[in-house]
Amino acid sequence: MPTAYTPPLADIRFILHRLIGWDKIAAMPAHAAVDAGTADAVLDEAGKIAAEQFAPLNDVGDKHGVKFDNGNITMPPGFRDAYRAFVEGGWNTLPVEPEYGGQGLPWLLAMPVQEMLQGANIGLALATLLNQGAIELLCAHGDDRIKKIFLPNLVSGAWAGTMNLTEPQAGSDVGAVRARAVKDGDCYSITGQKIFISYGDHDLTDNILHLVLARLPDAPEGTRGLSLFLVPKILVNEDGTLGAPNDVRAVSVEHKMGQHASPTCIMAYGDGGKGAAGYLVGQENGGIAAMFTMMNNARIGVGIQGLGLMERAYQQARDYARTRVQSRAIDAPKEPPVAIINHPDVRRMLMTMRALTEAGRALAYSCALAVDTAKYGSDGSKSQAALRVDILTPIVKGWLTDMANDVTSTGVQVFGGMGYIEETGAAQVMRDARILAIYEGTNGIQANDLVFRKIARDNGAAINSLFAEIDAFLHETSGMAALSTMRGQLASSLRDAKTATGWIAQNARTNPAAAAAVAAYFLRLCGNVLGGFYLTKSAHLAHEDLAASGGDADFLNAKIATAGFYAAHILPHSAALAAIIQTGAASVLVPPGTA
Amino acid sequence: MPTAYTPPLADIRFILHRLIGWDKIAAMPAHAAVDAGTADAVLDEAGKIAAEQFAPLNDVGDKHGVKFDNGNITMPPGFRDAYRAFVEGGWNTLPVEPEYGGQGLPWLLAMPVQEMLQGANIGLALATLLNQGAIELLCAHGDDRIKKIFLPNLVSGAWAGTMNLTEPQAGSDVGAVRARAVKDGDCYSITGQKIFISYGDHDLTDNILHLVLARLPDAPEGTRGLSLFLVPKILVNEDGTLGAPNDVRAVSVEHKMGQHASPTCIMAYGDGGKGAAGYLVGQENGGIAAMFTMMNNARIGVGIQGLGLMERAYQQARDYARTRVQSRAIDAPKEPPVAIINHPDVRRMLMTMRALTEAGRALAYSCALAVDTAKYGSDGSKSQAALRVDILTPIVKGWLTDMANDVTSTGVQVFGGMGYIEETGAAQVMRDARILAIYEGTNGIQANDLVFRKIARDNGAAINSLFAEIDAFLHETSGMAALSTMRGQLASSLRDAKTATGWIAQNARTNPAAAAAVAAYFLRLCGNVLGGFYLTKSAHLAHEDLAASGGDADFLNAKIATAGFYAAHILPHSAALAAIIQTGAASVLVPPGTA
Repeated sequence: MPTAYTPPLADIRFILHRLIGWDKIAAMPAHAAVDAGTADAVLDEAGKIAAEQFAPLNDVGDKHGVKFDNGNITMPPGFRDAYRAFVEGGWNTLPVEPEYGGQGLPWLLAMPVQEMLQGANIGLALATLLNQGAIELLCAHGDDRIKKIFLPNLVSGAWAGTMNLTEPQAGSDVGAVRARAVKDGDCYSITGQKIFISYGDHDLTDNILHLVLARLPDAPEGTRGLSLFLVPKILVNEDGTLGAPNDVRAVSVEHKMGQHASPTCIMAYGDGGKGAAGYLVGQENGGIAAMFTMMNNARIGVGIQGLGLMERAYQQARDYARTRVQSRAIDAPKEPPVAIINHPDVRRMLMTMRALTEAGRALAYSCALAVDTAKYGSDGSKSQAALRVDILTPIVKGWLTDMANDVTSTGVQVFGGMGYIEETGAAQVMRDARILAIYEGTNGIQANDLVFRKIARDNGAAINSLFAEIDAFLHETSGMAALSTMRGQLASSLRDAKTATGWIAQNARTNPAAAAAVAAYFLRLCGNVLGGFYLTKSAHLAHEDLAASGGDADFLNAKIATAGFYAAHILPHSAALAAIIQTGAASVLVPPGTA
Repeated sequence: MPTAYTPPLADIRFILHRLIGWDKIAAMPAHAAVDAGTADAVLDEAGKIAAEQFAPLNDVGDKHGVKFDNGNITMPPGFRDAYRAFVEGGWNTLPVEPEYGGQGLPWLLAMPVQEMLQGANIGLALATLLNQGAIELLCAHGDDRIKKIFLPNLVSGAWAGTMNLTEPQAGSDVGAVRARAVKDGDCYSITGQKIFISYGDHDLTDNILHLVLARLPDAPEGTRGLSLFLVPKILVNEDGTLGAPNDVRAVSVEHKMGQHASPTCIMAYGDGGKGAAGYLVGQENGGIAAMFTMMNNARIGVGIQGLGLMERAYQQARDYARTRVQSRAIDAPKEPPVAIINHPDVRRMLMTMRALTEAGRALAYSCALAVDTAKYGSDGSKSQAALRVDILTPIVKGWLTDMANDVTSTGVQVFGGMGYIEETGAAQVMRDARILAIYEGTNGIQANDLVFRKIARDNGAAINSLFAEIDAFLHETSGMAALSTMRGQLASSLRDAKTATGWIAQNARTNPAAAAAVAAYFLRLCGNVLGGFYLTKSAHLAHEDLAASGGDADFLNAKIATAGFYAAHILPHSAALAAIIQTGAASVLVPPGTA
């Protein structure tokens, strides 16, 4: 029973045009040609490929899974055709700079497109996210030879990309990588084993370009001794044509809780005896820096996977609740049974799902604007925007994927017993979502990144600039009676967030173990308050539009209702989080022997 | 890679002997022979069967699942042997009254035994829980003929029992049942279809006794027109020997997210043409009342399933975190990498899992004492105890299973990428747990039961009697400096709970839709505060024992640390929940069109 996917175009448009303002994009010289109408047309088309090509295969991918046979992986039925449609539609090239054959469209467009693809079929869409990361890496760090040989087919999507960091002893601790590289003519010879490699092998494309972290002889220990190599599955001649197979293969594929359609491989480099031929990307021992240029965007991408699955889970649960009739209404016990969406507890669950999804969307796309501004904005705006990307990245990744776990599990609950039966699809979304808080840096790593890299380095200045925006908004709207309850709650939560930020900034320096013990709560608090800000601001804009009779009144009223729900049900947790942050560390840091 | 299960005997004993006091059981005439030593011996033996017979098959059951072939279900390899060991050890008879062939042991012993079996292998142990429910029903409502023919084999475990309530249109709304029964000689003829029937067919036993809700001709509408029938899979002669197959069969088995070893069936009654022969249990049209005598205990049993899985998830995550070495310690960056249990964020997750598990255990077994007291206590104590069982049942079921979802998901997070790979077992525990908040009355139903049946009927008197116990404890321990932080947090949370209870009691009468909208939060708040009470009290007792040099100092110090963690990290959410309860309803009850 494959479930339909409806692209959430109305909310995406509201965020892009009203909450953020597309004029901010159009004002960038690089995007002068991308007017709001063009953006809408792109979103429409992306919604079609998501709903028509990707979504119908979501269920197929889960049930069928991937087939592994002697190093070769066969994707589930239909996946090659859907991927081909994606490539032929030019979607792989969307945000790539025109000098490399891309369309050069803003991330504020590329990320909503990603949301829809991920929500429709995360197992397949993960491949497109990996391509995007590989393209970014080679554009930023590849030399001319690499760009000439590999980029055209990678940008088009004719070839796919992967990220090879993890080894059994080197997960969160990437500096422990042991794979080795030795110079061999104008290439390098790579040997070693990598695990958890998404799309390590598949049959979607004629070639796969693996980006592999390895260690040169006499390299320094830790991350400073890592170099990055491009290792093609099939060797490529200087003219870009395919040659012989390289000495790299998938050894096995993992049996995972979810994302059955995405092949997660153990990869062997050089076990054929001669080593896999690899091209150095960037400088020797400069691999981790190169990886990090890509990783920020990839982390935002994983947050957007969470967003896509929240939306999918919400749609499924809402549609089920609208049609499933069970029990009489609490305030009409003599009337016939009603659809369960009328039962208050079911409505509470649906509103929770919706509120978190819409808050997450507004947060993620605000981050996308910062990505575009950091890259294409005015000289005066770039560095501030880059700091904002830095501070928002772990929050988008960590908060949206934590919430995706909650929201997709709530989706199962709305379905009741049917949610536990695989045929309804509710369980699949929950299983598919469960990796998001883990891969591309666990949410514990995100929380540490937020506290020790992002907050500690500027003593909270970047996050405080966001808080100042909230203050300004509260000030501007101080006379708005319709917003007063939401504003009151937002102001209270903002005070909690500021207090907690002060505590975190202080302790990150003076007592790092204590700051680490409560870092996860701090990340959640930031997401909670920022989500509340963007929704309250959305409600304000919706009131304006209603007053001006502009826009769809049903949509605008729903937006106001959702923001009101968030303020009453989600924001109040801020106070508890702030309290725990300030008092909770000691009881974590008891000696390990007692746990 | 099957994971080991270690019976949590130290904590169970601490709760039974110190927190609750076994003397309360020994003082009941029915249990005068069951001294503390006997209880410990039973727990030891139960721990052995759980760890040695049930646990090694947990992984097998998940991977192998059940096989359905033409109405017959074959259980996974080894399950028949493990079940036979369970029966031969007399475990099925543990809490059954001696007059029916049982051992008549208290629920305060039977429920810890259940926790261990469920934690070891919930797929198999569910069968034992269903047996228990069927036995209770027949003991309480079966006539002499039924008891004579069916009880001996059901009590021994030679035959198994099932509960057949749900139909496609009748899930939470059990009154919508359409299965029909017509009198036929001294039996009844049953026709209809039932869904989601756990253990609807299997090969563990020679016969299966289905307890089926159906509707007699001209029965009133709704629950008042339901009658309960015993429908054996194989007809049984008056002397208890097996006869011909009855007209009942499993039509199909569900493909579920978890609990792959427990066969969830669609059952057809009477589709062979002549109707399935059934025996009336209790009175005509008295089926729902009969079912409810069983359902309370079954709901506590599901809460205990949640407890068992929390313990299992905690053990797995803790053991992994003790051995998995990754990254240097935050306060020793020059030293070699350490086991991840030393990283503050991992410790925070483990402590959260442990604190919720131990709080849930104390709450569940306090409820078990009330069950025993209501049945075997002094005349003066019975009715109060029954009220306490009533108020605690939805909290044990709802809170422990909500927490089981959280705790088992956190377990996956501790494992990182390995948690998403099925071979480690972390994902299985999470998948197995996900049904607990749904079956035996969804947690939404539990919240409604708590608010509209239990709080509304006595205006909160039963819950306030519990709150009075907390007040008394706070008063008694007011001079204890070592407890002052915990006591302060508990007192604050108790005030929140009292305020929320007042609001709920009022609105359950005057504005039921509003009370229903926030009922789930109220259930969580009650669990949160009661869990905090039992842990704080445990810490107090641990301090006493340490001062008296009694008991295992490591265990006692860990108990104090766990209670301190709970007070600092879990209890503070009470204030947020109380605030949301009092202000959140309006934003749920917006017109459905806008969601």
